[in-house]
Amino acid sequence: MQLGMIGLGRMGINMVGRLMKAGNECVVYDPRAEAVQTSRSQGAVGTSSLEELVARLATPRVIWLMVPAALVDEILSKIASLVEAGDIIIDGGNSYYHDDIRRGAEMRSRGIHYVDVGTSGGIAGLERGYCLMIGGEKEIVDHLDPIFAALAPGIDAAPRTPGRQDSDGTAEQGYLHCGPHGAGHFVKMVHNGIEYGLMAAYAEGLNILHSANAGKRVQDMDAETTPMRNPEFYQYELDLPEIAEVWRRGSVVASWLLDLTAEALIDDAELTEFSGRVSDSGEGRWTTLAAVDEGVPVPVISAALFSRFESRGNADYADRLLSAMRKQFGGHGEKKAGG
Amino acid sequence: MQLGMIGLGRMGINMVGRLMKAGNECVVYDPRAEAVQTSRSQGAVGTSSLEELVARLATPRVIWLMVPAALVDEILSKIASLVEAGDIIIDGGNSYYHDDIRRGAEMRSRGIHYVDVGTSGGIAGLERGYCLMIGGEKEIVDHLDPIFAALAPGIDAAPRTPGRQDSDGTAEQGYLHCGPHGAGHFVKMVHNGIEYGLMAAYAEGLNILHSANAGKRVQDMDAETTPMRNPEFYQYELDLPEIAEVWRRGSVVASWLLDLTAEALIDDAELTEFSGRVSDSGEGRWTTLAAVDEGVPVPVISAALFSRFESRGNADYADRLLSAMRKQFGGHGEKKAGG
Amino acid sequence: MQLGMIGLGRMGINMVGRLMKAGNECVVYDPRAEAVQTSRSQGAVGTSSLEELVARLATPRVIWLMVPAALVDEILSKIASLVEAGDIIIDGGNSYYHDDIRRGAEMRSRGIHYVDVGTSGGIAGLERGYCLMIGGEKEIVDHLDPIFAALAPGIDAAPRTPGRQDSDGTAEQGYLHCGPHGAGHFVKMVHNGIEYGLMAAYAEGLNILHSANAGKRVQDMDAETTPMRNPEFYQYELDLPEIAEVWRRGSVVASWLLDLTAEALIDDAELTEFSGRVSDSGEGRWTTLAAVDEGVPVPVISAALFSRFESRGNADYADRLLSAMRKQFGGHGEKKAGG
Amino acid sequence: MQLGMIGLGRMGINMVGRLMKAGNECVVYDPRAEAVQTSRSQGAVGTSSLEELVARLATPRVIWLMVPAALVDEILSKIASLVEAGDIIIDGGNSYYHDDIRRGAEMRSRGIHYVDVGTSGGIAGLERGYCLMIGGEKEIVDHLDPIFAALAPGIDAAPRTPGRQDSDGTAEQGYLHCGPHGAGHFVKMVHNGIEYGLMAAYAEGLNILHSANAGKRVQDMDAETTPMRNPEFYQYELDLPEIAEVWRRGSVVASWLLDLTAEALIDDAELTEFSGRVSDSGEGRWTTLAAVDEGVPVPVISAALFSRFESRGNADYADRLLSAMRKQFGGHGEKKAGG
Repeated sequence: MQLGMIGLGRMGINMVGRLMKAGNECVVYDPRAEAVQTSRSQGAVGTSSLEELVARLATPRVIWLMVPAALVDEILSKIASLVEAGDIIIDGGNSYYHDDIRRGAEMRSRGIHYVDVGTSGGIAGLERGYCLMIGGEKEIVDHLDPIFAALAPGIDAAPRTPGRQDSDGTAEQGYLHCGPHGAGHFVKMVHNGIEYGLMAAYAEGLNILHSANAGKRVQDMDAETTPMRNPEFYQYELDLPEIAEVWRRGSVVASWLLDLTAEALIDDAELTEFSGRVSDSGEGRWTTLAAVDEGVPVPVISAALFSRFESRGNADYADRLLSAMRKQFGGHGEKKAGG
Repeated sequence: MQLGMIGLGRMGINMVGRLMKAGNECVVYDPRAEAVQTSRSQGAVGTSSLEELVARLATPRVIWLMVPAALVDEILSKIASLVEAGDIIIDGGNSYYHDDIRRGAEMRSRGIHYVDVGTSGGIAGLERGYCLMIGGEKEIVDHLDPIFAALAPGIDAAPRTPGRQDSDGTAEQGYLHCGPHGAGHFVKMVHNGIEYGLMAAYAEGLNILHSANAGKRVQDMDAETTPMRNPEFYQYELDLPEIAEVWRRGSVVASWLLDLTAEALIDDAELTEFSGRVSDSGEGRWTTLAAVDEGVPVPVISAALFSRFESRGNADYADRLLSAMRKQFGGHGEKKAGG
Repeated sequence: MQLGMIGLGRMGINMVGRLMKAGNECVVYDPRAEAVQTSRSQGAVGTSSLEELVARLATPRVIWLMVPAALVDEILSKIASLVEAGDIIIDGGNSYYHDDIRRGAEMRSRGIHYVDVGTSGGIAGLERGYCLMIGGEKEIVDHLDPIFAALAPGIDAAPRTPGRQDSDGTAEQGYLHCGPHGAGHFVKMVHNGIEYGLMAAYAEGLNILHSANAGKRVQDMDAETTPMRNPEFYQYELDLPEIAEVWRRGSVVASWLLDLTAEALIDDAELTEFSGRVSDSGEGRWTTLAAVDEGVPVPVISAALFSRFESRGNADYADRLLSAMRKQFGGHGEKKAGG
Repeated sequence: MQLGMIGLGRMGINMVGRLMKAGNECVVYDPRAEAVQTSRSQGAVGTSSLEELVARLATPRVIWLMVPAALVDEILSKIASLVEAGDIIIDGGNSYYHDDIRRGAEMRSRGIHYVDVGTSGGIAGLERGYCLMIGGEKEIVDHLDPIFAALAPGIDAAPRTPGRQDSDGTAEQGYLHCGPHGAGHFVKMVHNGIEYGLMAAYAEGLNILHSANAGKRVQDMDAETTPMRNPEFYQYELDLPEIAEVWRRGSVVASWLLDLTAEALIDDAELTEFSGRVSDSGEGRWTTLAAVDEGVPVPVISAALFSRFESRGNADYADRLLSAMRKQFGGHGEKKAGG
């Protein structure tokens, strides 16, 4: 099948590679000429403008956008003005599903088919394949099946779930038509919200292990600080890289994220390369907003999100207020040392 | 009534002042001679050793400890060796109630009466009076009534609760015998746990108001950062000192803590005097531990506690782990700027 | 000053009472004729239709809406078609500030002045006065000063904040012009978010006290349940009404909400009248949404919101999933008894 | 190697099976004669008393306890009186590591070697192997290597972590000597704390997906309830079993817990078999306590724990308090319906 790919960042270029490996033809565009050149050297048909990309595709065209969420509307608008009724535009980035619903309706009014695809897999996807969560019209999604099948990991990527019947569904291949416009990104959004919670669970637990020697630290004795009552219970010097490794086999907490954590810890268990300012790219926020709209409690996912906000200093004013209140009622000055 | 006070810190010296104002005689000791001198100049009988303090008190002696929690056992042990059966020792500091239960039993085995008093009121207590939560033997607590009545704010400090009957209870005076050994500090511990939650609620809310102009800030557009979707809703420049003030009258969130917050904001709405490292002095932790033991969910109180831990950098290793995981699966480098 | 009040529910009818007491003239309307009749008997000019209400008011008209948030747009639209340029319409209910921004612009395009007022005080407001947070054009807000001054508690409702200078500001009177359209409801929204956190802090703390006798309960001994390790620390039978009362005087947690809690506990410390399904009326959700938009961490306020969701059974499916997972990996059946 | 197993519950009997399959000799005891008979039929040497078990073992004896945590002290005490200096007793259950430290010292004073082993793997362990986290004296742990190697999954259970060097460590085999007495159960405790967080993240996320049709439900319009503002965004009917399945391949949230979730959802996506009362067996509580002692923030792990408490009704009194407060300040009656 032929596909036009717009956006050759980390994700886009690897997806093109995987698509071509499965025998699909890829026409690519990126404003950075060197990215186009790299992809061309891997077998893609490079183009130097959106117009050229559209011109090089046979109808009904299939165009996949893999660009930052903030740029989708602008690029989509340009492409929509170039393509014809019956063509298909796929947004495979991290768009907010609200936008998909709007865009789906806008495109439909022009006879263009819009498909939203939530894509998980990260930089490992070239080799492992991408998990695809898809929203859009059923017949269009069916038409694109060769694309999705090529990108997805395939059934051999995991053992069959016990109790599962042989069926013609695609979930076992690693891709799924979730519902109408927006359903793909909705499911991907929640997927990422879960990811926030999973990551935070590991991070908190490893942080406890990291402080398992807290009883060895000397402590102040004053009215501001409670001394540790039981330092004898916190005398362990634990080897975190080995612990992350041992959990990878046979434990209940084994996961791909744990695999990655074990890998990250090998070089430097203290992770001094990082400062601890944790970014968030939208989905954790949107997941929380959706939960609030639905009235669904998400104490864990939201706590994971707020920890990221806090890691970036966004609680500072609140913290200063707490210190100010403490000074007001107790005359407590701020202390310099932690604990 | 005559009372010996050990410990003339912020709290102790003011309590002595209030006790004497009500006609009680106070014999005081503190290792800092200048503190003793100050108290003596206010009318107290100063002493220069525990031995002298004990010698100056008539039996049955009443001795009040107002010292850091970490020092209580050592001082209690010394005093216990100096006093006689029938004497009364009161711990009015922030002891863990587990210790009260142990100390109560130890003292009882020596014929000494032990009373634990949780004392709230902070530096304002000299004028407002102290809220006292008391644990110990009923007859001993009754015997100490003049002390408690002098320290407490008295019935006029708040309007009568509608529906409340005239009674001979003391809660309306601002002091209460809560139960046996440890009950006073147990109730005070939970009181402080609640305080953590209240303070955090104000701090979080005011932080939202403080960022009500977030839509005015320019934002990056890249795959790492979701742009603010609706900057038009965050264009307010709010006057926090005035808002804290307006809430003091007629609103549902009026409280003494809000009064203090309004006061703190007057001088400098940005609170630049503070760095935002928020101490915790034990009770928030103990409240959380008690809740966990009881199986009682405390998402709010624990969140308030954890925010203080985070303010002191104790989440740093967890945050670095999150950044490391993000780099592993997504190739995301850490960003310098917040958001 | 003359004012038209639309909506004579719990809040509206009391506000009319307070306005008239201060010498203002009130023309009122409510679809429930008996409510109009009640208000008329208290001195208001009753009307039986929006048209009549508008006709009875002198220009520039001042019309205050005190209706459920869901009905504001419909009623506002009707009134806007009846009034003239220069008239003023105030929404004093619990509108979302997003709506205020939109409505403010719509009304402005028709020459009508729109003012949003967040009103706190509840059913006690008739007597205590209402705390008013106001958004809109400065000159219009100034024009309405007699209305706001009549509704607000006045400066005597609280002692002056130390450090505060004499000024011509209104915050000390209990009302405040916070900013342009929406600013009033924005501040009120956050006010209510704080209220959620405060309420939860008290509720959690009192729940710990309520279970202070947990060590007395017999426990199962099986692989599913950890026995309480230290039942000796949970043997207290605490008197919650008395504890809530004692905290009202001199303690750091004294507040109006605590006053109300003390009152609620007098009749029945077990609160058997209530089932524990806690409603939420929007502001807690909106506060959380705003915090997420701003990137401000609100672990406490959100936890308070989610506890309400959970109280209504909205976590049930998640809980069943947890039990299902536990059965999968551990063969654990669900237990009937709590703990 | 020869090993005595005490406790033939779900875990114990499978571990015996796995040990024998690897050529070890197992002498077993359980108070339930039928369990002994089953194990005997699988090749174990059955005994009918602790005395008999001890008598059947060659010195230095190796005895593994796999019994409920609440029974360990009693059984350990009996066995300690039967064995000789130089013998080894292993606690492979879910003991609190505080107990291990105490027991290790007690046993050492009698010349007995004590080893604590945290065992993960659940009922799948017979086939997959068990992940073992071990605390105790190094030479004793080394001596027991054949036992641990037989129980653990082995290196082939997961692909090698990139960057990891060939080494003689055992973590890649699935077992690890973590440190001195208690270190095994400490690491296992935190492992389970992480597990709580992971499970909650999936449960919350799937709950959001489960309510993705919330916009279809009719809503009340009154002052107590905010109507859903954007029902058009919550019109999805999502197929949760298929979504859990699709995430198993290529996605960032793939894990063994997800595998189990997918399996649980196949039969009944509504999980009507479960009531949603979620047990907790101690480790989540202990993890939270350790974090609080260390001053490490664990908002996610604690939130997961508290959600379990809430699922069992332990927030009920707090919720009734909230309803009572709402009635006090707003005259709000409780509503029957959720939302």
